[in-house]
Amino acid sequence: MITLASDFGSPYPAAMKGVILQESDARLVDVAHDFPRQDVRTAAFWLREVLPWFPPAVHLVVVDPGVGTDRAAVVARAGNHALVGPDNGVCLPAARRLADGADEIEVFEIDLGDPASSTFHGRDVFAPAAALAHDAGVEAFESRSEFAPVGEWTDLTFPEPTVENGRAEGEVLVVDGFGNAITNVPGEVLDERYGGTVRVNGESAPVEPTYAAVEAGQRLVTVGSHENVELAVNRGRGADAFGVGVGDAVSIDLDHA
Amino acid sequence: MITLASDFGSPYPAAMKGVILQESDARLVDVAHDFPRQDVRTAAFWLREVLPWFPPAVHLVVVDPGVGTDRAAVVARAGNHALVGPDNGVCLPAARRLADGADEIEVFEIDLGDPASSTFHGRDVFAPAAALAHDAGVEAFESRSEFAPVGEWTDLTFPEPTVENGRAEGEVLVVDGFGNAITNVPGEVLDERYGGTVRVNGESAPVEPTYAAVEAGQRLVTVGSHENVELAVNRGRGADAFGVGVGDAVSIDLDHA
Amino acid sequence: MITLASDFGSPYPAAMKGVILQESDARLVDVAHDFPRQDVRTAAFWLREVLPWFPPAVHLVVVDPGVGTDRAAVVARAGNHALVGPDNGVCLPAARRLADGADEIEVFEIDLGDPASSTFHGRDVFAPAAALAHDAGVEAFESRSEFAPVGEWTDLTFPEPTVENGRAEGEVLVVDGFGNAITNVPGEVLDERYGGTVRVNGESAPVEPTYAAVEAGQRLVTVGSHENVELAVNRGRGADAFGVGVGDAVSIDLDHA
Repeated sequence: MITLASDFGSPYPAAMKGVILQESDARLVDVAHDFPRQDVRTAAFWLREVLPWFPPAVHLVVVDPGVGTDRAAVVARAGNHALVGPDNGVCLPAARRLADGADEIEVFEIDLGDPASSTFHGRDVFAPAAALAHDAGVEAFESRSEFAPVGEWTDLTFPEPTVENGRAEGEVLVVDGFGNAITNVPGEVLDERYGGTVRVNGESAPVEPTYAAVEAGQRLVTVGSHENVELAVNRGRGADAFGVGVGDAVSIDLDHA
Repeated sequence: MITLASDFGSPYPAAMKGVILQESDARLVDVAHDFPRQDVRTAAFWLREVLPWFPPAVHLVVVDPGVGTDRAAVVARAGNHALVGPDNGVCLPAARRLADGADEIEVFEIDLGDPASSTFHGRDVFAPAAALAHDAGVEAFESRSEFAPVGEWTDLTFPEPTVENGRAEGEVLVVDGFGNAITNVPGEVLDERYGGTVRVNGESAPVEPTYAAVEAGQRLVTVGSHENVELAVNRGRGADAFGVGVGDAVSIDLDHA
Repeated sequence: MITLASDFGSPYPAAMKGVILQESDARLVDVAHDFPRQDVRTAAFWLREVLPWFPPAVHLVVVDPGVGTDRAAVVARAGNHALVGPDNGVCLPAARRLADGADEIEVFEIDLGDPASSTFHGRDVFAPAAALAHDAGVEAFESRSEFAPVGEWTDLTFPEPTVENGRAEGEVLVVDGFGNAITNVPGEVLDERYGGTVRVNGESAPVEPTYAAVEAGQRLVTVGSHENVELAVNRGRGADAFGVGVGDAVSIDLDHA
């Protein structure tokens, strides 16, 4: 199985699929092709959340603002999975989650060769590499590529929240399509507070286990499916109602409702 | 085969696919993931229109504004098809069409167990249930779930039009991506009127078998692929030109052009 | 393998897939369903660029503003590929590229029969024809349809650029989702000019092999993955920055920077 993720919109992903299918009978599964364009960080977040739900697979990941520069192209083996993409950090957060610890990640460099284009390595470099990783295994890269420990590659980490003295300080990592503002604050800070209220950036909001626990249009604080605190509105857009966007600070006063 | 439909946008559907593929080799086919968010009625309409074109399949349907509340999760067997989704009516119009009569629908309740999240039952409840329905059949639910006649579950029906004295009174059920306003008025009211005109909400419009029968930008009344009367514009947006949206009344004066 | 391309958005393509899967076990691969509506020319461009990356396949192509009129429905055999779609030119540019020369294209007419609708031939005519072409080969159409040389069918060609006296004159063929303005000027006019500048519609712009060779927000002229000159902005929208849209003239003064 090969999954595909990119910021390409349409129809560029189809060219990648064609190239893979020239080489491989792999099952193809789209993860997303509408990641915000050139936004490595947001793509890395979603891949970290979504890819662990898959069985062992090769994950082709192309959010690649540096295409055609001297940035490397890599294959990262993480447990029974492999990620194929540019060396810009987009793969490593997912790889860590898939490997359940960075020690089990190996990264191989893909020999770029002389690709047909300098603007579409998704088609000309990464798609053939994904087909090769699928059909021959990541070992295929050992013989023709340079192996290096993960620390030598571009990494990407998300900011760590602080939780102390009844206050959680974090930030909005992404806003999903429903408008939910997903923070980096771990959901367990809300344990035993369901049915009560907390203050978010100074304003009171109810803590509920699910959206429909409040009336339509009302704000709530909940724990999303990624196990982080989420600022939401039942049948509405939480990010708008709480006045926050990606990267904005979120301060949750847990005990002073 | 398992089809997938939701209002999730991207990339949440990929998590559902991963969960299914952990359990099952089923072929996966996307129906749509861009249904208007939390709009059970519109999703139910499109599923009723699209699913009957499929061979026997399990249809995973997640438009679920009540996720995490005490709404039930159900499997509805309809002929050789099964629908898996929340008990909010989204499945039953399609089930009736697939079963060709409500008598052949059986509904089973899915044991929710202790899902990983209270906000994403598509991933944590419905996807595993769809895999089980596909691999083991709907009978798998009989042993662990409560069977009930269809009448005990949440139903959803579309308003019935009236046709009498040369006048059809109905409403707009949905507006499709082309801007066609699809009504609940049966297409046969236009029989023998092609090439003539009718009055729609007081204004005259030609009756034609297809869009390009009128000039680009001109209005027409036709019968869409769902066999209902459709208000359209050749290469334009009928809903805008006729000034109607979902739920708006449509009165068609058939004999007074 | 059957690929699918249309301007249908969602969920109409699912009905086509269901119809195919009633008849055939073919692997289905989406090319795009968000081509600009009723824009035969733009769809023809993208299909010409994307389909040659696929292994031999049947390509179902439905951008069909003339649905239900007397326009024919055709199957075009091109090399080991077949295209199935309306006779409005949308298939022929891709067919020429796939056949590597028009001499090898054969076009068969599909017998329309009495389709279920006059507004959705994608579902009622082209999907069954694609399944038949896949399972029985294009020969299946010979016995029941009229064969004709390609010249008898609706063709579509893109404007030819001129390159002389150090000046390339062409036009914008499409703007892709990144905002890159893709012209009809062949990329080789930029050979040996990388690192220098050219004048585009009178204004100077650097010539670079890839987007990130200039600062974010800066304009550049490059060669896209389709091997044509592209007007771009690193991490921005080239069409906006150069002030051009589809069909606009592009004059490139190659020697007077």
